[in-house]
Amino acid sequence: MAGKPLVGVVLGSASDLPLMGGAAEVLDSFRIPHETIISSAHRHPERTIAYAKAASGRGLKVLIAGAGMAAHLAGVLASSTILPVIGVPLASGSSHAANGLDALLSTVQMPTGVPVATVAIGGAKNAAYLALAMLALGDPGLSEKLEAFREVLRLEVEEKSRELFPGT
Amino acid sequence: MAGKPLVGVVLGSASDLPLMGGAAEVLDSFRIPHETIISSAHRHPERTIAYAKAASGRGLKVLIAGAGMAAHLAGVLASSTILPVIGVPLASGSSHAANGLDALLSTVQMPTGVPVATVAIGGAKNAAYLALAMLALGDPGLSEKLEAFREVLRLEVEEKSRELFPGT
Amino acid sequence: MAGKPLVGVVLGSASDLPLMGGAAEVLDSFRIPHETIISSAHRHPERTIAYAKAASGRGLKVLIAGAGMAAHLAGVLASSTILPVIGVPLASGSSHAANGLDALLSTVQMPTGVPVATVAIGGAKNAAYLALAMLALGDPGLSEKLEAFREVLRLEVEEKSRELFPGT
Amino acid sequence: MAGKPLVGVVLGSASDLPLMGGAAEVLDSFRIPHETIISSAHRHPERTIAYAKAASGRGLKVLIAGAGMAAHLAGVLASSTILPVIGVPLASGSSHAANGLDALLSTVQMPTGVPVATVAIGGAKNAAYLALAMLALGDPGLSEKLEAFREVLRLEVEEKSRELFPGT
Amino acid sequence: MAGKPLVGVVLGSASDLPLMGGAAEVLDSFRIPHETIISSAHRHPERTIAYAKAASGRGLKVLIAGAGMAAHLAGVLASSTILPVIGVPLASGSSHAANGLDALLSTVQMPTGVPVATVAIGGAKNAAYLALAMLALGDPGLSEKLEAFREVLRLEVEEKSRELFPGT
Amino acid sequence: MAGKPLVGVVLGSASDLPLMGGAAEVLDSFRIPHETIISSAHRHPERTIAYAKAASGRGLKVLIAGAGMAAHLAGVLASSTILPVIGVPLASGSSHAANGLDALLSTVQMPTGVPVATVAIGGAKNAAYLALAMLALGDPGLSEKLEAFREVLRLEVEEKSRELFPGT
Amino acid sequence: MAGKPLVGVVLGSASDLPLMGGAAEVLDSFRIPHETIISSAHRHPERTIAYAKAASGRGLKVLIAGAGMAAHLAGVLASSTILPVIGVPLASGSSHAANGLDALLSTVQMPTGVPVATVAIGGAKNAAYLALAMLALGDPGLSEKLEAFREVLRLEVEEKSRELFPGT
Amino acid sequence: MAGKPLVGVVLGSASDLPLMGGAAEVLDSFRIPHETIISSAHRHPERTIAYAKAASGRGLKVLIAGAGMAAHLAGVLASSTILPVIGVPLASGSSHAANGLDALLSTVQMPTGVPVATVAIGGAKNAAYLALAMLALGDPGLSEKLEAFREVLRLEVEEKSRELFPGT
Repeated sequence: MAGKPLVGVVLGSASDLPLMGGAAEVLDSFRIPHETIISSAHRHPERTIAYAKAASGRGLKVLIAGAGMAAHLAGVLASSTILPVIGVPLASGSSHAANGLDALLSTVQMPTGVPVATVAIGGAKNAAYLALAMLALGDPGLSEKLEAFREVLRLEVEEKSRELFPGT
Repeated sequence: MAGKPLVGVVLGSASDLPLMGGAAEVLDSFRIPHETIISSAHRHPERTIAYAKAASGRGLKVLIAGAGMAAHLAGVLASSTILPVIGVPLASGSSHAANGLDALLSTVQMPTGVPVATVAIGGAKNAAYLALAMLALGDPGLSEKLEAFREVLRLEVEEKSRELFPGT
Repeated sequence: MAGKPLVGVVLGSASDLPLMGGAAEVLDSFRIPHETIISSAHRHPERTIAYAKAASGRGLKVLIAGAGMAAHLAGVLASSTILPVIGVPLASGSSHAANGLDALLSTVQMPTGVPVATVAIGGAKNAAYLALAMLALGDPGLSEKLEAFREVLRLEVEEKSRELFPGT
Repeated sequence: MAGKPLVGVVLGSASDLPLMGGAAEVLDSFRIPHETIISSAHRHPERTIAYAKAASGRGLKVLIAGAGMAAHLAGVLASSTILPVIGVPLASGSSHAANGLDALLSTVQMPTGVPVATVAIGGAKNAAYLALAMLALGDPGLSEKLEAFREVLRLEVEEKSRELFPGT
Repeated sequence: MAGKPLVGVVLGSASDLPLMGGAAEVLDSFRIPHETIISSAHRHPERTIAYAKAASGRGLKVLIAGAGMAAHLAGVLASSTILPVIGVPLASGSSHAANGLDALLSTVQMPTGVPVATVAIGGAKNAAYLALAMLALGDPGLSEKLEAFREVLRLEVEEKSRELFPGT
Repeated sequence: MAGKPLVGVVLGSASDLPLMGGAAEVLDSFRIPHETIISSAHRHPERTIAYAKAASGRGLKVLIAGAGMAAHLAGVLASSTILPVIGVPLASGSSHAANGLDALLSTVQMPTGVPVATVAIGGAKNAAYLALAMLALGDPGLSEKLEAFREVLRLEVEEKSRELFPGT
Repeated sequence: MAGKPLVGVVLGSASDLPLMGGAAEVLDSFRIPHETIISSAHRHPERTIAYAKAASGRGLKVLIAGAGMAAHLAGVLASSTILPVIGVPLASGSSHAANGLDALLSTVQMPTGVPVATVAIGGAKNAAYLALAMLALGDPGLSEKLEAFREVLRLEVEEKSRELFPGT
Repeated sequence: MAGKPLVGVVLGSASDLPLMGGAAEVLDSFRIPHETIISSAHRHPERTIAYAKAASGRGLKVLIAGAGMAAHLAGVLASSTILPVIGVPLASGSSHAANGLDALLSTVQMPTGVPVATVAIGGAKNAAYLALAMLALGDPGLSEKLEAFREVLRLEVEEKSRELFPGT
């Protein structure tokens, strides 16, 4: 999306891209400029912290982080910026063993003073919708688009119901 | 706090007040006007939905909902407003049995299109800090206060360490 | 099934139909008129509430709701009708990550005064059998059919045992 | 409550009485005749099965069972009657160790054909409210009382909110 | 295996046979006469209880029960016999959702006085080995065979290690 | 209890005695000679293994092990004897944090060939009842006592019910 | 302990001191010089990273980190040093709600290349014993002390057993 | 790898080799001599204990154990050596049912005095990296290699980010 990015999406690993692609899709559909980088809380903390520290000055408004296992990525970002940080727990990693509960708890159970806005396991799209809701606080045009989107959701429910169960 | 409220705190039950009081404390300390009401997703859905629908028009910018057990309160609010909704899962209810995991999963696992920004179990203060981060997107003075607060957190860590372990 | 519907089955999403089809099958096999609609607690709360409020007046006796993740559908229905509401937690949604435990806890842990009659994860057929048990309270003929069905269950156990393990 | 009992409450153990007393309270407040017995799925299966088999003939309409740990009580009752059986998982037993999750799963995960209507862990009152909803299907007066009770719930929410947060 | 059966294996459903076949294999390999039947705690409680009550008189020494979901089968057997009952929790059922934890807790968390000897999820073979250990208390020849089997286990470990990692 | 011990109770730690005392009480009430020792799978494996290896030769018939956290005690005993070993998972240890689920899984999930007969978390008494069931296979007098005990359980249920709910 | 510290203990919060004091006790008893500081992965990441980066140069050999909730402390340290880092998950924090499982998963589920040596929930003493085992690799005198300590553990088991159960 | 082995990798079963092969790969890439054997805590405790007891005398510095289900292997090794023992919980076994949580808790929740350094579920490579960190305490050359490896991790993050998201 052209324009100075307002949302920064950070992936803990290139392998998380298929799980996180929905965030960019949603931002694109609302024409919100955004950028994506790969960084890692544990393999490259300096890069992660530097990105978070520079974010506000570069005009970013919201950060989205997707990570699996002991998912510290959103927390590390949140520790180094006052911008809202949205965390997407991913059921990823080499083991898949803990079924995403590890990533959820690692993302949401932050200490007082440094919150992470956590969405559902695998909820990349919802991270973007939450970012839109935050951006809309200062953008009436975006608010209208979001209201329209919600209306679309409602109509889709009604149409799908009519299609499958005529008369409903 | 005087002034038109910017943040609305919704309690699922009067008995949740001791667990949720921290949200108002934090907002007060940053001089953000706010209001608190009791409503219930299940015992009074009309009131809850009406509150959410009117919120934006009344000037509210962010909603915070605290609820336990099958904690639908934040989700019901989010279904009826495009304002960002922050959910605080509470280890409350008559049983205390599921230890807050029920409230966490009921709050965070929202479907695509209707996100809830979830914080830690019992994280009422962090819900307020997250609300402040959202409000600060359009309020440079608040951004400065948040930066200063983070500096205080850092100093407190250093002081506490020096106090308990001189020389550190 | 012809006739004025006595049971209303509500799906949270069209994608839940394969998981919930068993409910209609069971109701059909007992010749109980029923209807199915798609609605959503979060994407279309007004429709969901309106359906619940109108249900009793339209002659419906029991509602069945199937939903995954933060499964609020049954709870929203129960908040707006005094008819018995049966909830079917589904291991569905884009993530599948929490393995159905999220949906189970979101469905069953309802607050005092607004119960949801919860059945097993994926238990669409049992939701229908439970609805039949409720309807049978006022329908002696249905009671007899249910007794006969239980007898069939017993005979099937015996036959299957004899078939696989002759002499048992 | 005078009159031929319509609801039978079965306790797995005398020690569960404090956890299950709420069921009788609710039934009393709606003037629904009921009875309570102690039986046990494991220590006295014959008694439990005999009670379930005789229930319908004795005029009972709904059974409520409260039990902890490997909570089989509701399931055993359901196996021997076609009346609706409501299960209340209890966080009881000598260990308290599994926090009620053992009782919840043991109660709700019933096989196809023999459902148990499960309510929240410790949800004795809700078991009674669910029983009332079932009885109200054939009792218009009770339906009206339930509607009035829901109205009371709504008013209590409003009053409590006004009391704690004047103006809301 | 010819001879009056000493071990009775009870399957909750024909569909559990692939998961439980290992029990018979182990018993066969030790030449212990056994029988298998299908019964069900919930679909045919009378058959299950009758089998348990008659077991001792028919010469059976140990019962093995395999069941999934709200696995009450072993508990129902144990409630109606003083013979040792071994429970095998199965990750079976139509949902597979709770991953076997439901069956484990439903089998193992029995109340005081009516124990079930529980083995691992899916541990059909171990149920048989445990039955052998019990039978060996009164059968010195079987004790010797079990000692020899343990020696085989040890040798297999050594051989496998040498084969894959020569010199170890 | 006088006489050559038939049951050996092994405690992982002296601090587990209050949680495990019920085993000896039950064995005493059935006049079964038994002994208790403290040993530890991790702090004194030689002693634990030596005890298991000598058990059969010393006339012991059944071993009972109670341990918390990563509860390996029953498994270590089972690895060094063919006698039946009963494991009691304890919600003990310095942390109490994992609520007994750690001990349960560590005790029950044994590999093929080396089973542990696992009872409920904290189920010391049931470990003894299970040991009695095993011993009764070769002791008709004990069988009769166990049958009588079950009858007592039944009568207690009936009496308690009559006492609390006259007429039931 | 006098001398240049070999082990650095990092507390996430002053409130964790009672839970973590055992680490220093153990190190003192083995006369291993150590230091304790308070730092925080989220409230003071620079301090935490700076400490980790300087650790090796300052002569530290092992780091121990204790933290609760979304316990990132050990992971942040590990990301900035190649020294072994031992993580102690704590059941601490304002909520206590997730019972330590959140801290365990947040500590142990580290990505490939950046391990944390995780000990039991609340296992501060074991973190120290593990640090001793690492230090002993280059300190034969410490190895001997550790061997002696293990012998003490064995003797304590035997003495305690003799004391409580004479003759064992 | 030629040379006297410094690291001993113990597999609980030959079937765990695919899950544990990463440990040897990592050790090979750092040219650390190592050996792998199969042993079993339960099927061959003598072999396991003998291996642990001889390890130090044979020049081994660190032991790595991978096991699933009731994963006692690392604990048994740790009980018989003062060398650091690293445990890798595996989501293996015939059932796969408990998703690796059983192995994690069985490995990490060790009692005071006998720690196991636990890594992530399936974290065989990280076990090796942790062993390297321990060995590096006495091997400056290895320290340098580990520092270089960390630099490689950082560069890989940067390159992958540039490749997928040019300009980042």
